[in-house]
Amino acid sequence: MTSAAKHVDEARLWGRHMDMAAIGARTDGGVNRQALSAEDARARALLVEWARSLGFDVASDPIGNLFVRREGTERGATPVLTGSHLDSQPTGGKFDGAYGVLAGFEALEALQLGGIVTRRPIELVAWCNEEGSRFAPGAMGSAAFAHALPLETALAIKDREDKTVGAALAEMPTLPPRPLGFPVHAYVEAHIEQGPVLEREAKTIGAVTGIQGSQWFTVEVRGAEAHAGTAPLRTRQDALKAAVAMIAALETWMADETDRVRFTVGRLDVSPNSPNTVPGRVVFTIDFRHPDGAVLVRLGDGIERICHENARGCAVTVTKNFDAPPCAFDPRIIDTIEQSAAILGLSRMRLPSGAFHDAKHMVDLCPTGMIFVPCEKGISHNPVENAKPSDLAAGARVLATVLEELAR
Amino acid sequence: MTSAAKHVDEARLWGRHMDMAAIGARTDGGVNRQALSAEDARARALLVEWARSLGFDVASDPIGNLFVRREGTERGATPVLTGSHLDSQPTGGKFDGAYGVLAGFEALEALQLGGIVTRRPIELVAWCNEEGSRFAPGAMGSAAFAHALPLETALAIKDREDKTVGAALAEMPTLPPRPLGFPVHAYVEAHIEQGPVLEREAKTIGAVTGIQGSQWFTVEVRGAEAHAGTAPLRTRQDALKAAVAMIAALETWMADETDRVRFTVGRLDVSPNSPNTVPGRVVFTIDFRHPDGAVLVRLGDGIERICHENARGCAVTVTKNFDAPPCAFDPRIIDTIEQSAAILGLSRMRLPSGAFHDAKHMVDLCPTGMIFVPCEKGISHNPVENAKPSDLAAGARVLATVLEELAR
Repeated sequence: MTSAAKHVDEARLWGRHMDMAAIGARTDGGVNRQALSAEDARARALLVEWARSLGFDVASDPIGNLFVRREGTERGATPVLTGSHLDSQPTGGKFDGAYGVLAGFEALEALQLGGIVTRRPIELVAWCNEEGSRFAPGAMGSAAFAHALPLETALAIKDREDKTVGAALAEMPTLPPRPLGFPVHAYVEAHIEQGPVLEREAKTIGAVTGIQGSQWFTVEVRGAEAHAGTAPLRTRQDALKAAVAMIAALETWMADETDRVRFTVGRLDVSPNSPNTVPGRVVFTIDFRHPDGAVLVRLGDGIERICHENARGCAVTVTKNFDAPPCAFDPRIIDTIEQSAAILGLSRMRLPSGAFHDAKHMVDLCPTGMIFVPCEKGISHNPVENAKPSDLAAGARVLATVLEELAR
Repeated sequence: MTSAAKHVDEARLWGRHMDMAAIGARTDGGVNRQALSAEDARARALLVEWARSLGFDVASDPIGNLFVRREGTERGATPVLTGSHLDSQPTGGKFDGAYGVLAGFEALEALQLGGIVTRRPIELVAWCNEEGSRFAPGAMGSAAFAHALPLETALAIKDREDKTVGAALAEMPTLPPRPLGFPVHAYVEAHIEQGPVLEREAKTIGAVTGIQGSQWFTVEVRGAEAHAGTAPLRTRQDALKAAVAMIAALETWMADETDRVRFTVGRLDVSPNSPNTVPGRVVFTIDFRHPDGAVLVRLGDGIERICHENARGCAVTVTKNFDAPPCAFDPRIIDTIEQSAAILGLSRMRLPSGAFHDAKHMVDLCPTGMIFVPCEKGISHNPVENAKPSDLAAGARVLATVLEELAR
């Protein structure tokens, strides 16, 4: 066991998860801590308090990414970066995102407790708005950091109450400034798997090979409101029945024997949403992902056509909000993660990520990788999301070892 | 022309529509004046002000139906009742409901201006919550008046913010009390057709023969939230995809060559309604109507089975909120309406009502009928709902004539 991993404390790490989960706690055991909410502000303040109590500097960049820095010995050396996000889905769990931040913090504390000196600084980041459930798209903070999303565009994005990201950011704790996109030596993110593979294969550590591709769409269907009792069905422009026909046709289009397609309509809003009025407008989202870039493009390119073919007299606008091809992580980082797990005597395997992560944007800036730990039944984005304290600690030990190695 | 009809004033009647439409006016020209809202309170106050300025007594019963009374000469004679409702859909128009109240008020004023003495009192009613868009079911006030809905049940019904009808009623203008279900000699309701028949047939007056049957359902689909990027489609319990399958199957079930079936899913709420989370819960409404009682029962009885057959592993609860067989209006009232239109030289026809109306509940209490006037393109429950001032006045003249005849 290396010096840093030895100082990772399972109980302390678990306790920090419970402290963080108390912020935005739902009565069903889950967490509702959406990006740039009052709960997010409290979560940030708690992380800052912990960081300062250990003597670490904290800072924030213009999109609200929060950084905690442990200095290295070489002046001007680019930092090794680790982290994830503190925001959650509205009906989220205790571990998605929070684990990567808290495991990173545990690694910093372990280095501190071990009196370990590194050449490079090591920084922890809590990326702003990974989930994208309040302000779309998600992974906004890392996208802006990596200049994949212009800052001004991001700041102007509105939630459903027409509040902008910029206005919501002004309500977060004020911290010393940090620029977007500063040079980074390497990025490693720890995360619960959010899928069933590690649990099924009885492995503690996943060395993540890359992230499947994603395309996200918004479909707006505009029909005509009419009286539910009188308007003949043949004359209606029923926006909901058109949306139903579109979604049913898209299901057929996306049919996949190998069950690798991920096709989700997660949000659907009906207007006026009154039982006795034919819906005049429906807006729904499509989240479509696939690990094979060619399949992603082929199936994704059919979405707009299929919506138009099933419009039933309504007007349709299909907007692609997000288009990310599959990405591969750096082989050296993957190797370092596997070797660190081996040194620590932990069972391990390579696997791709089904979920999107902030690491996706960091691939363009520096060698990047991810460490997965199992979560119960693979369930995530759900209040019952759960993970074992021993698995979380094991992942933090691997992370501490990898960071120490990369910052050597 | 009879005495009362002669004093109906097209410009005054149109002006009152515009005054009423200013309360809850939408920027798109429509009206949002939902039951027991602040706008409803203002609409009631305006009607009370108009009534008192003509010396009429006003009163309200325990469910918030508002009554305006013009006395007759015979002490204790049961009143002739006319009216409709002042509440609107969230994206409603200026005429649905308001027309029946304002035409009734115009008739009272015409009788007054003509110095016409009737044996029976004539009362105008503004029924509470006909639309049912905020508090379901609709036609709540007339149902409670006719003892088709227990008062205590009605008062406990909640809107989506968990406010009860009882609590909302306490915010309406306080008026002298009137009991529920008092004896009524006859009931006649004027209304825009809300359908295309009168306009297509170029008739000014519709003598309504009855109301088609209605069945209203709420369907709750309970699945399991999961991560949109990771959860394999085969293992999902996606409440929205199940709802889509149910609605698509119900469309097939309801297919009707004669286009007499009215099948509407007007409201659909998704939870958590986040783009990257598989929906864990969907609640949607079904509004199903048919003029043939046997067909209504046969098709309506298939709804629950079809929902269960398309549940795709989700749990389903189908609740029937409302079940009204088709009803027939009183032949004497229909005749009186037709004859009055003939006396006034107005084109006329008999037709059934596609929409539900408060008159449905009055059928159980007294001889009942309805007068329809055309509305533009048959469009209703829509901000662009429109009607001609001359048609509205013609309907008010027929109504005044019928009321005078019935109160003789």
